Amino acid sequence: MKKILVIHGPNLNLLGMREPGVYGDERFETLNDRIRQKAEALGVACEIFQSNSEGALVDKIQQAVGNADGIVINPAAYTHYSIALRDALAAVKLPAIEVHISNVHAREEFRHVSLTAPVVRGQIVGLGTDGYLLAMEALVKLL
Amino acid sequence: MKKILVIHGPNLNLLGMREPGVYGDERFETLNDRIRQKAEALGVACEIFQSNSEGALVDKIQQAVGNADGIVINPAAYTHYSIALRDALAAVKLPAIEVHISNVHAREEFRHVSLTAPVVRGQIVGLGTDGYLLAMEALVKLL
Amino acid sequence: MKKILVIHGPNLNLLGMREPGVYGDERFETLNDRIRQKAEALGVACEIFQSNSEGALVDKIQQAVGNADGIVINPAAYTHYSIALRDALAAVKLPAIEVHISNVHAREEFRHVSLTAPVVRGQIVGLGTDGYLLAMEALVKLL
Amino acid sequence: MKKILVIHGPNLNLLGMREPGVYGDERFETLNDRIRQKAEALGVACEIFQSNSEGALVDKIQQAVGNADGIVINPAAYTHYSIALRDALAAVKLPAIEVHISNVHAREEFRHVSLTAPVVRGQIVGLGTDGYLLAMEALVKLL
Amino acid sequence: MKKILVIHGPNLNLLGMREPGVYGDERFETLNDRIRQKAEALGVACEIFQSNSEGALVDKIQQAVGNADGIVINPAAYTHYSIALRDALAAVKLPAIEVHISNVHAREEFRHVSLTAPVVRGQIVGLGTDGYLLAMEALVKLL
Amino acid sequence: MKKILVIHGPNLNLLGMREPGVYGDERFETLNDRIRQKAEALGVACEIFQSNSEGALVDKIQQAVGNADGIVINPAAYTHYSIALRDALAAVKLPAIEVHISNVHAREEFRHVSLTAPVVRGQIVGLGTDGYLLAMEALVKLL
Amino acid sequence: MKKILVIHGPNLNLLGMREPGVYGDERFETLNDRIRQKAEALGVACEIFQSNSEGALVDKIQQAVGNADGIVINPAAYTHYSIALRDALAAVKLPAIEVHISNVHAREEFRHVSLTAPVVRGQIVGLGTDGYLLAMEALVKLL
Amino acid sequence: MKKILVIHGPNLNLLGMREPGVYGDERFETLNDRIRQKAEALGVACEIFQSNSEGALVDKIQQAVGNADGIVINPAAYTHYSIALRDALAAVKLPAIEVHISNVHAREEFRHVSLTAPVVRGQIVGLGTDGYLLAMEALVKLL
Amino acid sequence: MKKILVIHGPNLNLLGMREPGVYGDERFETLNDRIRQKAEALGVACEIFQSNSEGALVDKIQQAVGNADGIVINPAAYTHYSIALRDALAAVKLPAIEVHISNVHAREEFRHVSLTAPVVRGQIVGLGTDGYLLAMEALVKLL
Amino acid sequence: MKKILVIHGPNLNLLGMREPGVYGDERFETLNDRIRQKAEALGVACEIFQSNSEGALVDKIQQAVGNADGIVINPAAYTHYSIALRDALAAVKLPAIEVHISNVHAREEFRHVSLTAPVVRGQIVGLGTDGYLLAMEALVKLL
Amino acid sequence: MKKILVIHGPNLNLLGMREPGVYGDERFETLNDRIRQKAEALGVACEIFQSNSEGALVDKIQQAVGNADGIVINPAAYTHYSIALRDALAAVKLPAIEVHISNVHAREEFRHVSLTAPVVRGQIVGLGTDGYLLAMEALVKLL
Amino acid sequence: MKKILVIHGPNLNLLGMREPGVYGDERFETLNDRIRQKAEALGVACEIFQSNSEGALVDKIQQAVGNADGIVINPAAYTHYSIALRDALAAVKLPAIEVHISNVHAREEFRHVSLTAPVVRGQIVGLGTDGYLLAMEALVKLL
Repeated sequence: MKKILVIHGPNLNLLGMREPGVYGDERFETLNDRIRQKAEALGVACEIFQSNSEGALVDKIQQAVGNADGIVINPAAYTHYSIALRDALAAVKLPAIEVHISNVHAREEFRHVSLTAPVVRGQIVGLGTDGYLLAMEALVKLL
Repeated sequence: MKKILVIHGPNLNLLGMREPGVYGDERFETLNDRIRQKAEALGVACEIFQSNSEGALVDKIQQAVGNADGIVINPAAYTHYSIALRDALAAVKLPAIEVHISNVHAREEFRHVSLTAPVVRGQIVGLGTDGYLLAMEALVKLL
Repeated sequence: MKKILVIHGPNLNLLGMREPGVYGDERFETLNDRIRQKAEALGVACEIFQSNSEGALVDKIQQAVGNADGIVINPAAYTHYSIALRDALAAVKLPAIEVHISNVHAREEFRHVSLTAPVVRGQIVGLGTDGYLLAMEALVKLL
Repeated sequence: MKKILVIHGPNLNLLGMREPGVYGDERFETLNDRIRQKAEALGVACEIFQSNSEGALVDKIQQAVGNADGIVINPAAYTHYSIALRDALAAVKLPAIEVHISNVHAREEFRHVSLTAPVVRGQIVGLGTDGYLLAMEALVKLL
Repeated sequence: MKKILVIHGPNLNLLGMREPGVYGDERFETLNDRIRQKAEALGVACEIFQSNSEGALVDKIQQAVGNADGIVINPAAYTHYSIALRDALAAVKLPAIEVHISNVHAREEFRHVSLTAPVVRGQIVGLGTDGYLLAMEALVKLL
Repeated sequence: MKKILVIHGPNLNLLGMREPGVYGDERFETLNDRIRQKAEALGVACEIFQSNSEGALVDKIQQAVGNADGIVINPAAYTHYSIALRDALAAVKLPAIEVHISNVHAREEFRHVSLTAPVVRGQIVGLGTDGYLLAMEALVKLL
Repeated sequence: MKKILVIHGPNLNLLGMREPGVYGDERFETLNDRIRQKAEALGVACEIFQSNSEGALVDKIQQAVGNADGIVINPAAYTHYSIALRDALAAVKLPAIEVHISNVHAREEFRHVSLTAPVVRGQIVGLGTDGYLLAMEALVKLL
Repeated sequence: MKKILVIHGPNLNLLGMREPGVYGDERFETLNDRIRQKAEALGVACEIFQSNSEGALVDKIQQAVGNADGIVINPAAYTHYSIALRDALAAVKLPAIEVHISNVHAREEFRHVSLTAPVVRGQIVGLGTDGYLLAMEALVKLL
Repeated sequence: MKKILVIHGPNLNLLGMREPGVYGDERFETLNDRIRQKAEALGVACEIFQSNSEGALVDKIQQAVGNADGIVINPAAYTHYSIALRDALAAVKLPAIEVHISNVHAREEFRHVSLTAPVVRGQIVGLGTDGYLLAMEALVKLL
Repeated sequence: MKKILVIHGPNLNLLGMREPGVYGDERFETLNDRIRQKAEALGVACEIFQSNSEGALVDKIQQAVGNADGIVINPAAYTHYSIALRDALAAVKLPAIEVHISNVHAREEFRHVSLTAPVVRGQIVGLGTDGYLLAMEALVKLL
Repeated sequence: MKKILVIHGPNLNLLGMREPGVYGDERFETLNDRIRQKAEALGVACEIFQSNSEGALVDKIQQAVGNADGIVINPAAYTHYSIALRDALAAVKLPAIEVHISNVHAREEFRHVSLTAPVVRGQIVGLGTDGYLLAMEALVKLL
Repeated sequence: MKKILVIHGPNLNLLGMREPGVYGDERFETLNDRIRQKAEALGVACEIFQSNSEGALVDKIQQAVGNADGIVINPAAYTHYSIALRDALAAVKLPAIEVHISNVHAREEFRHVSLTAPVVRGQIVGLGTDGYLLAMEALVKLL
């Protein structure tokens, strides 16, 4: 059975409480439940991880080698400046898909640049929390 | 019955013949067949349109008002400089999703900027031609 | 009798339907009627042309040689990137005045630059559709 | 009876003497006479003010509150760097139209940017001193 | 009784030992004592937190919801690049004031930009460690 | 008895009337009364000066030598481009603190740069008109 | 017998009438005659195509596959912004040579950049209409 | 007898008191005496003018027409941003020479640009107050 | 006996497994063994530390005060954006040498800038893992 | 009999030995023989010069006055930064054509700019060593 | 007796023959005679050196140590890019004055930057060949 | 026996005399003696070359083919702009190591960029003249 690692970056644990006009009002736990159900429907195992710490996210990506077959990641704020995260994703060479809940291209200019995008397979942007489920679908097809 | 308009920008009619290392080797007609099957599976009508001409693409988007409920668009090269296309998408106010077959963020720097992204709902990038099908799924959910 | 060519660029045919907060709610046909009435009042003939296609706009400007004495043009989106339009205006050497309905300087940064402005006589910006009528007045004075 | 304030920025008092190739050879006083005649024709009162001093121009704009119904202003050199002038125009909230005698877009690059444009209603550029008269017409329509 | 959270970013624990020419020679503990005395004088409770870790600072800001009424924060080096910190401050919506001990505008150019400034209420810069006390005063007035 | 010079830059005389959403609705005279009361409370003399003219502001700063012991200045629009003001502040060498009523970092990009900041002791930004009072407090401590 | 496709971009049909100081006074038809004579002299077939429309130029390049052995193209204004043209040239993989009649490097800065240059074999710039003939010579050698 | 107008920009009246490490310790009056002596030695009349106000400097330059044969000007801070000063110098068409006491190229980057330099005959930079005398010499030779 | 602290930044623990074309195929532990042997040969003690967390790296640098006489550091990804790391290195004032295994100047543009370089003594770049040993040699000479 | 001076810039003497993937494998001497044969065929005299020294190249261009009727020059690396070479070419006013063997527009960004291009008649780029021969042909036509 | 070294950079040997509209029509030898006469009048020895080679200019500056008391230098084209020349001038520490015959600030943008200006005492720009004589005067005063 | 070529760029012959605060006070000859001793200790032959001329440095690098096995080069000022030097190093394909005596990253911004770095194996920066010896050690290991 294939296994997907779903990684949430900083402040995503506040989902549903944080700027609902931007991120929607679904709670973080509800999203995670939908992710788990989707995994079941797709016939894959799935592990979910959230951290506000860049280092912890890098650690988790490194540990995915041998423990997961692919990654769905929303690097949140780190998308735009964490070369460490980019290096980790490039180093482990697992297929990965980047997700952004909001349409980052319609927000502040510094959110238009993604350092991680060039080292992942693809990006799903602005489709709300459904973006995670679509990414899982696409990832399973890639595996 | 809802109707989706699927728009292919310039040079996409060469799909399968053009730089297969970048765009894959699926032929344009095969992709369109898969789009039609997906529409059927989703229970929606669908119209497919391709043009190399910016003006014809703008015309088509304008005519979508009253003829379609949503748009899946791969603006291809025009993504990066066509303000006319952006204005058309903003004007018609239909929900739209932008698709890119290749990971534009891993290519030339001028492909990292999208003028249309800020006026669509979301983007699906780098997931190959499956990106169209995922976009259709997402669009149907939005409608 | 002098003749004025009035050219509308892309998406202006949607006038009155498109973002009325930005462009006002006067319909495209109503504007054209006012343009025709103004021409009559000024004692000049007038032809009105709209296209979403850059190439068709260039064709029209070229054909103005020998067919018109001056041009009023709202290049809309093409203002900001069409070197072809600029070259056409520079080539035909007819006196031309550029019109923008909205105040482009109060909108997105990419609308602050005009490639056509350096090759026309003048610009009327942000005065709504009345800008066309003022431009016609000014053009007739120049002729 | 409505009242229009017409403001001339720095060096415009030299009109007719200064670089006639750029600004034409009409004298400053002749222009002001035409402005007064136009006001009469439009059935409005009008006051004309010129200063080379940024502070005096800001003072004048502030005093317009309660004394005038709209402003026609050619900020000349200050167009391109006076945030103080911009703030004054934004503060008094009177409808204002910006005029430039020459086609600033066909001159030095630093003249392509206008700090005041985003806070006025519109701009008339490059139509010679007639631009003032057209601006008065447009302003009276707005009032 | 209102409660203020005072957050010190990276390297501020070295205060008094680190570049005294820039940061003064008051020790970190002495500053914290003065902060506590000021809180007492203002009649508010106060908690002080320091970390060199961006993730720990984000965690702390998130936990402030329900535990504090306002934040005084010196993000130190993170001021200039931590979008994660900015997002956390924006998410919790507590009134916050940013403090910098040294005059960052008189130092290296990369210290002139603050990513957090746009999401806090205000900034106190260059007034030494007294800046914290002034910020507390201002924050209590806001609450 | 020490003496503080409080300088208001252009358009601040409109306080309370000008964009209250940005600057609050306290009237200019009310603010000046509070400044005078604060001076009394701090046991210092204080002089208040406002001008819209860059030259008059430079003159006043120069005259402060021998007439005042420190300066609280809100250079308003001039903050962002007046090298003359910066040179005057640097030349007189009196301790000075810069105040901005609104959070300039959350406004237009051209308001993010301060030419005067590198030559004053510190800045208080975004704390409303209370910023003046906090600056006076800080200045008295410095003297 | 080899076949060369010669493509003229926008406004080149005005050759001889348009800014003769820049482009010379040879008429478009005369140039085409010389091109046909050169083809004959080189022992190759040749087809000549001109359009003001970006889309039509892209269409023509695509149709060259199987119909021509190489391309001589003067993309004129489109040189500097048409990614669609670049993509078409890259897609068809026919050997192509880019020609500019005038010395674009001695003109406006926006004419110094060529988007098509990186995907063609070479460029001939500033040698007047003879550049077409030299390009044909070079192309025949490459075939 | 020829007449030279010597203009000092803002803060130069503080000469000898202001940053002597940068500007030297000669007093403003001493410099003016030397200027008057030099004029005498050169057999020309001379008028000296200083102001901190941009508007007053523009007024003075305008009044030079008919009253002076040439200008020596140290625009000080206004060098770097006053388009009004530049326009005045360009308008009056008197031969002018720009002087800077300190080596502006060895100071802050914003002092490396001169807006007035392109419209004067020449510049003398960094040679201390002697630069005025050398400029007078050169100007007399030009007249 | 002198003591050297050797610090490895993020993802260096993957050495030998991560992009061997870029970083070589020596394993992390083998490198550390060579570092320990080199220390012995140089007659110094040495401590080795690796972390993916910026905060942990800052903590370690701070703790070096009193515990080490010099630092050899490969900040890896953090080199290019961690002002916190730079501040820590500047604060502790221990002599430090920066090492990069690969030639960062031959890689992506964002790797060409080092925020830490200006506050260390020197850099050794592109000489593979031997760079660490050379840095130790150089550091011992400096001590 | 007309005379052409052919100038090779730095490192071109290594032709055939240097990066044959970029510059081809024809030896420098072979190219020069072909240049001499072409001259003969064109009925002109020709002199060939190569140097790695910018100064020697400038000297040679200066000496061409009176000794040659036109110049074919491949400035190689100096193309991109030698203002001295540009000034020399502009000074001697001989008709000159610039040649680049490789397609510089498909290489590093710093090779996309040519300082010499604006002062020569034209450029032949990317057509291999045949570019020299085509340039000679074009030059002879110009003479 | 003091000795001045006068250095002419590349292409200045063409003076009088090269672009007389820019540089005047005085011949190089005539200028040198005037320089020698001026030296005599000032009671100093003088040596004149010209080279088109950057290396030879650097050599000459180095040899000035012990052989000259000051330098007048017109680095011509090298002004704008020769860091080697700048380093040489900074290394020898002789007082130096930079001269430009034409007003470089009124020419191409790349001529507005001087790399040597920050390391010389001053600059004389745009005063024709008299600039050399004024520089000699100023230099003798400095010695 | 292997042979190393050690190349010193412009102004390095002044070592010990030039800005000792930046480059140290070791004389050039002393450094060269240490280089020769190091070569002996490493069991390799070594040749040392210095020139201020870019062309001479390029010549020397070209001649190294067949005469040396590797290069240690301090390109000094040429590091930052000599594309000719870069091309030479890339052409000869000998392993090369770049040395800078001072920490260029802590100096002027134009010294932060190295054009040669991307084509050498590695760089040693800021470790004083010992950097040469370390580079020789590293080079011998590479050979």
